[in-house]
Amino acid sequence: MQTGDGFRSDKGSRLDRWLGSYAARTHGMTASEIRALFAVASRPEVVSLAGGMPNLSALPMDVVSRSVAGLVDRKGSVALQYGSGQGDPELRRRILDVMAPNQVTAHPDDIVVTTGSQQALDLVTRIFVDPGDVVLAEAPSYVGALGVFRSYQADVVHVPMDEEGLIPEALSETLIALRRAGRRVKLLYTVPNYHNPAGVTMAAHRRPQILEITRRFGVLVMEDDPYGLLGFDGDPLPAMRSLDDDGVIYLGSFSKTFAPGFRVGWAVAPHAVREKLVLASESAILCPSSFSQMAVSTYLAEHDWKHQIGLFRELYRERRDAMLQALHDMLPTSNWTNPQGGFYVWVQVPDGLDTKAMLPRAVTARVAYAPGTGFYTDGQGRDYMRLSYCYPTPERIREGVRRLAGVIDEELEVQATFGPAPRSNRIGSSFESPGPDLS
Amino acid sequence: MQTGDGFRSDKGSRLDRWLGSYAARTHGMTASEIRALFAVASRPEVVSLAGGMPNLSALPMDVVSRSVAGLVDRKGSVALQYGSGQGDPELRRRILDVMAPNQVTAHPDDIVVTTGSQQALDLVTRIFVDPGDVVLAEAPSYVGALGVFRSYQADVVHVPMDEEGLIPEALSETLIALRRAGRRVKLLYTVPNYHNPAGVTMAAHRRPQILEITRRFGVLVMEDDPYGLLGFDGDPLPAMRSLDDDGVIYLGSFSKTFAPGFRVGWAVAPHAVREKLVLASESAILCPSSFSQMAVSTYLAEHDWKHQIGLFRELYRERRDAMLQALHDMLPTSNWTNPQGGFYVWVQVPDGLDTKAMLPRAVTARVAYAPGTGFYTDGQGRDYMRLSYCYPTPERIREGVRRLAGVIDEELEVQATFGPAPRSNRIGSSFESPGPDLS
Repeated sequence: MQTGDGFRSDKGSRLDRWLGSYAARTHGMTASEIRALFAVASRPEVVSLAGGMPNLSALPMDVVSRSVAGLVDRKGSVALQYGSGQGDPELRRRILDVMAPNQVTAHPDDIVVTTGSQQALDLVTRIFVDPGDVVLAEAPSYVGALGVFRSYQADVVHVPMDEEGLIPEALSETLIALRRAGRRVKLLYTVPNYHNPAGVTMAAHRRPQILEITRRFGVLVMEDDPYGLLGFDGDPLPAMRSLDDDGVIYLGSFSKTFAPGFRVGWAVAPHAVREKLVLASESAILCPSSFSQMAVSTYLAEHDWKHQIGLFRELYRERRDAMLQALHDMLPTSNWTNPQGGFYVWVQVPDGLDTKAMLPRAVTARVAYAPGTGFYTDGQGRDYMRLSYCYPTPERIREGVRRLAGVIDEELEVQATFGPAPRSNRIGSSFESPGPDLS
Repeated sequence: MQTGDGFRSDKGSRLDRWLGSYAARTHGMTASEIRALFAVASRPEVVSLAGGMPNLSALPMDVVSRSVAGLVDRKGSVALQYGSGQGDPELRRRILDVMAPNQVTAHPDDIVVTTGSQQALDLVTRIFVDPGDVVLAEAPSYVGALGVFRSYQADVVHVPMDEEGLIPEALSETLIALRRAGRRVKLLYTVPNYHNPAGVTMAAHRRPQILEITRRFGVLVMEDDPYGLLGFDGDPLPAMRSLDDDGVIYLGSFSKTFAPGFRVGWAVAPHAVREKLVLASESAILCPSSFSQMAVSTYLAEHDWKHQIGLFRELYRERRDAMLQALHDMLPTSNWTNPQGGFYVWVQVPDGLDTKAMLPRAVTARVAYAPGTGFYTDGQGRDYMRLSYCYPTPERIREGVRRLAGVIDEELEVQATFGPAPRSNRIGSSFESPGPDLS
């Protein structure tokens, strides 16, 4: 509502003198409706199966403490100073070792260090996406990526997955339809390993098929791989980047294999793209934190990080097992995926239930999850929820699922008596930021 | 040049398969011509008066070392974890104390912590500026801010300054002309204290005058104040934010008063704007580094940071004095400003000289500076250069000015013999990123 003096009311609550000044990209930025609920869900009595926070209990704090102190003692004048926009050369060399198990080969010059891989997502989108361009994303897809795409006014088009990840035929059909409609498709965003939120992994045989399709249609692949080293069985799969140097931007992160508190991620990009990424990053933040980068680098140099990742794998595998067992024992009316690594399982609740509408009742029953609709831009996902097994203990996971089963049973009873509950509103095109705890 | 197969050549050098895919905003992103020169200028034999790196020699490394180790020991599971998008509440409370000398009063909820104040510049521009909108900036202006404005496709219009900073009458005339031309003016970007690059300070009596004008024209002020506590004489001036809560976004930074290596800055914004900034920051980086924020917070808690800033002031004052004395002794043909704080002096060279064209010869003579044109978007500044006195010792500063005087004398001789040198190209509208060392 606009009043005569140029002041407008901000959804009836509070005057915002600048409401008429925001950029077009800002109009869709609204806080998620479920944000307030997550504040409640962070209370200790609630079992949160909603967040994506890594479990740092296995991290050797004494090692980290000594290493950051030694860093200041030995290299303080560099670690506390501005650094290069592209990132610390020593860290970039060490990142090559970290990517070796996924068979990514690169030169340190191909790497751009970012403030978490979220910044890499932002920068890639910034340099490629004009308003109205199409970004393809799996259905469902990482909520933080969807937020970035919407903030650059991209149209996100979802491509279906199955238990083997993104379906090549569906990708091809989608691209043909978009070409026919005259749409400009810039990026395919994918999380091939231990998908967030779906908990599935793109089969090895599908990777070259998908790259053949994206190459044919001139679409750049953004391969987001924060969980690639956190597989529970066998060797890591080769990254898509290992199959196509020039058609894939690979995003990596230390947030899940070391610690998110330093905010260190990276992108591996084709040469010319990498130059643009560096310029865009300098504009966004000047340079990533020297201290954070050198802290990670020192940790990698002084600690047996591969063994440490092995410990994390065991910790998450134990929790994955507890989660699947609990689902098997207590949610017989639901379906779920079978994650081979990573943090998440994707659960389909019985027909007619709406996980977003049900969430307040779940929180009242002291269990929280991430409702499915947040992982789509088109209103899909009402009968899905993402459960995280990364953070709570196995006992708490079991207790959380027990509470969740109680809530679902009650919902089904209500439904049997009164018919399906009214659906919650579609998410539509507004940019809902769920906050970092949903990452 | 586009060839039949969809590949294009990248300025004739290297194929960029993705050249046809970049967003419109990316087309102007090119590395600065002087970037390569600065790589040379970083050699130890060159006296660099070009960079803006703070002098960390006065920083007590033992204090910092103990404090980061203690942080991991006592609060590692929080410091190494994801945090809130808005920033650590404890740090936000402490920032209030840091702003008190500039008379900024706020609530911790009004503060958004950012990855250096560069990120705050980026986020404010992101939420307010549509392509083609006008951003007003002082003439000259901070090169990193101009880069941000161009990356969002803003039209930067420069407003003249004099020794008392931005000229209110000129601001008013510019706004009237822009209104007549039907232009949409979103922001006034200003560095009121110890200006980068101009080395002048906005007089206290002008601050309310300028705010009266921006209020009248509905223009939001972005007050960038990284040097506010680094004045050499008297008490700090009241920030513009202290005079207008609702019309000013205040940007602060720990990069010049503590250490840039942590990349911690902040914005103080009106309530509704602050909410948008948090959403935009979550989209850009999820959350700022918990470790960096808590390291700064711990330093502020455990160390006498006010005394430390006093030491920095003395260190920079001594270097400012050395610079002004050297200019007085050795550059009689030039004019310069008289900085009362901060890092920079702005030098006007004799008529007919072109500081950008002269830079390669200066680097050959083992002295570097920042040529004036980089601080404008409209090709002004050929006869200006920015000299930084923050980093070298007083002796090196004097030696650098001696070398510079030799270069200028040679240029003047050549000019007397052959006439003025050909002008270098205009910067025009391309986005030249000079890299972090020019900050």
